[in-house]
Amino acid sequence: MPDPLRIGLAGLGTVGVGVIRLLDTNRDLLAARAGRPIELVAVSARDRHRERGIDLSPYGWEDDMAALAQRDDVDVVVELVGGSDGPALTLARAALGAGKPLVTANKAMIAHHGLALAELAEARDVALKFEAAVAGGIPVVKGLREGTSANKLERIYGILNGTCNYILSTMEDTGADFAEVLGEAQAKGYAEADPTFDIEGIDAAHKLAILAAIGFGARIDFDAVRTTGITRVQAADIAQADTLGYVIRLIAMTDVEPDESGAPRLLQRVRPCLVPKSHPLASVDGPTNAVVAEGNFSGRLLFQGAGAGEGPTASAVVADLIDIARDEVGAPFSIPVASLAKMAPAEPGHRMERTYLRFTVADRPGVLAEIAAAMRDAGVSIESLIQKARSDDGGDVLVAMVTHEGPERCVTQALALLEGSDSLTAQPLVLPILPD
Amino acid sequence: MPDPLRIGLAGLGTVGVGVIRLLDTNRDLLAARAGRPIELVAVSARDRHRERGIDLSPYGWEDDMAALAQRDDVDVVVELVGGSDGPALTLARAALGAGKPLVTANKAMIAHHGLALAELAEARDVALKFEAAVAGGIPVVKGLREGTSANKLERIYGILNGTCNYILSTMEDTGADFAEVLGEAQAKGYAEADPTFDIEGIDAAHKLAILAAIGFGARIDFDAVRTTGITRVQAADIAQADTLGYVIRLIAMTDVEPDESGAPRLLQRVRPCLVPKSHPLASVDGPTNAVVAEGNFSGRLLFQGAGAGEGPTASAVVADLIDIARDEVGAPFSIPVASLAKMAPAEPGHRMERTYLRFTVADRPGVLAEIAAAMRDAGVSIESLIQKARSDDGGDVLVAMVTHEGPERCVTQALALLEGSDSLTAQPLVLPILPD
Repeated sequence: MPDPLRIGLAGLGTVGVGVIRLLDTNRDLLAARAGRPIELVAVSARDRHRERGIDLSPYGWEDDMAALAQRDDVDVVVELVGGSDGPALTLARAALGAGKPLVTANKAMIAHHGLALAELAEARDVALKFEAAVAGGIPVVKGLREGTSANKLERIYGILNGTCNYILSTMEDTGADFAEVLGEAQAKGYAEADPTFDIEGIDAAHKLAILAAIGFGARIDFDAVRTTGITRVQAADIAQADTLGYVIRLIAMTDVEPDESGAPRLLQRVRPCLVPKSHPLASVDGPTNAVVAEGNFSGRLLFQGAGAGEGPTASAVVADLIDIARDEVGAPFSIPVASLAKMAPAEPGHRMERTYLRFTVADRPGVLAEIAAAMRDAGVSIESLIQKARSDDGGDVLVAMVTHEGPERCVTQALALLEGSDSLTAQPLVLPILPD
Repeated sequence: MPDPLRIGLAGLGTVGVGVIRLLDTNRDLLAARAGRPIELVAVSARDRHRERGIDLSPYGWEDDMAALAQRDDVDVVVELVGGSDGPALTLARAALGAGKPLVTANKAMIAHHGLALAELAEARDVALKFEAAVAGGIPVVKGLREGTSANKLERIYGILNGTCNYILSTMEDTGADFAEVLGEAQAKGYAEADPTFDIEGIDAAHKLAILAAIGFGARIDFDAVRTTGITRVQAADIAQADTLGYVIRLIAMTDVEPDESGAPRLLQRVRPCLVPKSHPLASVDGPTNAVVAEGNFSGRLLFQGAGAGEGPTASAVVADLIDIARDEVGAPFSIPVASLAKMAPAEPGHRMERTYLRFTVADRPGVLAEIAAAMRDAGVSIESLIQKARSDDGGDVLVAMVTHEGPERCVTQALALLEGSDSLTAQPLVLPILPD
C-alpha cells in the first residue's frame, strides 16, 4: 500500500467533526479512490475540551493552529476555522508557506485573500483547494474548473445561501412574515444567532466572487459585488409574486460584458428576484443550493444539492483531499493568478429587465397617480396589474406592479423622482424578474 | 508558449463538427485553461467529400481511421465514429496500444468494451476519457469521479435519454399519442430514423452501466441491465398519471445491496416510471438529461443539462482534452480496473415499491372483479382509484390503478395469475412510482 496522505485539521465545529466522521466511515473507499489511505494525524481548535461527540484521542493536538503546518507528520492542512482573517488566514499562510497543500471551506477568506493565497500556492507549486467554500456539498468549483472548462461562460447564477432560501421558501409555504420565519430558522440552526452575513447577502456575495473568478478568469473583486439582502421582502410580496406566476429567491448572478473600448467588465450581483415558476431554480426549496452555468457550447447546466451542513460540506472537503492524493490539482482559479484579468465593475444601467416594484404608501387619493406619473416621466412602462394589499405591519398599503422590459436606469430614475414624496411611507422594494 | 496538444479526430458527424467548431471558436480560452494550445492536426471519416459546413483543408486526412493513431504529429485520438465495435473499436485499440490517450463519446463501445480498453490504457499509463458518452454536456462522469468521490453512493438515477424524454414530455404537453410524437421527433432530428436504441431504453442502459461502474466501483455489466422502453406508454397513461400527481419519465437507476452472504449485488434498471410532480426530475422536459447521485455524506446531488447535440457533446469531449492537457487524468473508472468488484446482478423481487398498473381489457362485466381477485390472491393491496379510460386505439378499455407499497414480486405474481385471461386484450403495463 502506498504512503498515506496525512492530514492536519484545524477547526472542530460542525464541518470539522463531519470531516473526521467521513474519513472514518468511508476509510476503505477513500483509500481505493485516492490510491492511498487518507489519515488524520493531528487536530487543533480553540477549545480542546469541548464535548463534540467524537473521540479525539487518536490524533495529535496543537493549541496553536499554525503549528499544524510545521508538523513533519502533516502532508496537507485542512482549515475549517472560518473568518476572513485571524487564525484562519495565519494558518493558511503558514501551510502554503511551508509548501503544504491547503484545503479550506472558508468562503470569506478566499473572497478576500484568495488571490494572494493562490499566488503563494502557485509559487510553491502546492495545491490550494476550496470546493467546500461554495455551495456546500455541490461540486460546483470542480464543475466550473473541469466540467465547463471548454466553454466561454455567458452567465453564472444561482441560489448560494441556504438560510435565505429556507426563509423565502418557508414564507412562501406558510404565509408567515420575515421576522417570524427568521426566528424559527435560528431555532432550527438554519440561521446564525447573528444572521447578518446570510440575510444581507454577504455570504452569497463571497461565493459569487469566487465563482466569477473561476468561471470568467477574472481577478476576485468581492468589493464590487452589488448586494441586496432579503430583509425587506414581505409576505405580501411573496403573495403578489405567486399571483403573477413567480416565486422570490435570493439570486446571485455574474456575467461579463465589454465596455465601449471592448475591455471586459464584470457584473456581480446578489438580489432577491422574481423567478418564473417554470424555471429550474423556482423549485429549489429549503436550505438547498443550485448553480446554473450557461456556456457557449454546453448550454445551460444546473448543479443542485445541499448548500451547507456537516455531511455535504465534509463531502466537498474530502473530495479536495482525494484530488490532492491523486495529484490532480492545477491552478486554484483554473488559470494562474498572473493570467486572471483585472476587470472593472460593469455599470448595469443600460441593461434591459422587467421589474417588480412595490411601494408602501399612505392610503389616500392621488397616491397612485403620483407613482404612475413618475413612471411615465422616467420612461418606465407598466405591464401589469397594480394591486393593493395591506402591509405586513398593518398600517400602510402596498402597491405592487410589474414593468415591461426596459433599461434598469429608468426604474432608478423613477424612484429618484419619487424620493422625498409624502405619499411613500417606506422605501420602495425593487425586485428584478429573472428571465426564463 | 508550451507545446500544443495535437489532436487526431475520427468521425465528422454532428459531434465531430461541433468539436472542430469549439476548438476554433474558444481557441485562446482553451489554451489559457489547458496551459497549452489544443490543436487539431488530422481528421478521418467515412466520406471525405461530404458537405459538412466546415473547412477541413487545414487538417491532415486519413482514409483509414486507425492510421490516426500512428501519426507522429498526433498526441491524442478523439473517437466520434460510434458503434460498439467496428472501426471505432479498432481505432480505440490502436490509439491506446500506441500509447496515446483516447477521448470518446461512444457509450456503446464503453458499455461493451470499456473494461478491456481501460486495462489497455492503464497498462500503457495513458488516459481513456469518455465524459461525452453519458448525458451529453453534463459533466456527470467527472461529477461522480471527482465531485462525489468522498461518498459511498446509495443510489444513482436519472433521465439519460433525451429522445425518450422529449417524446414523453411532448405527449404530456399535447395529449398526442406515442407514434405521432415519435414521428415528429424524427422529423425534428430528436430521434433517429431507426429509433430502437432510444425508445427501447438501450441507449440509457449503456449510459447507466457506465455510471454504475464509476459510482460503485463495479465491473461494467451491461448485459445485466433490466431494460424496458417507452413504446407501450399511452396518452391515457400520461393523463392518468397527471390526475394522480405524477409525470411519466424513462428513469435509469442503479444501486448496490448485499445478498445474504454480504456480497454486493448490483441492480441496474431502465424503466418508465411515475415521477411525483414535486421531484426535481419531474420538471426535466424536452431533450434535457438529469442525473441524481445520493451520497452517504453529500446527500442528494442533481446534475442537469443538455443530454445531446452538437455543442453540449463537443463541450464534454473538449473538457476531457483539457484534463489531458493539464495531466489531470487517473483511472478511467475512478479506481483501477483490477480493483473493480465483479458484482452479481441483484434480484429485486423483495424490494418495496408502489406501482401504477394499467390493464387493457374487454368492456364487459366481471373484468374488474377478476383483476381485483388476482391482486388479492397475490397479496397486492390497491391504494387508489381504479379508473377507466378509452385506449389510444379506440377499441378496448383501460383500467388503471396504483398499489400500496409492497414487494415487487407480488405484482409479478398477480400478473402471472392473470396471464392467459380472456379479459385482458393486451399485456398489462407496469410503471413503478419513484419515491419522492
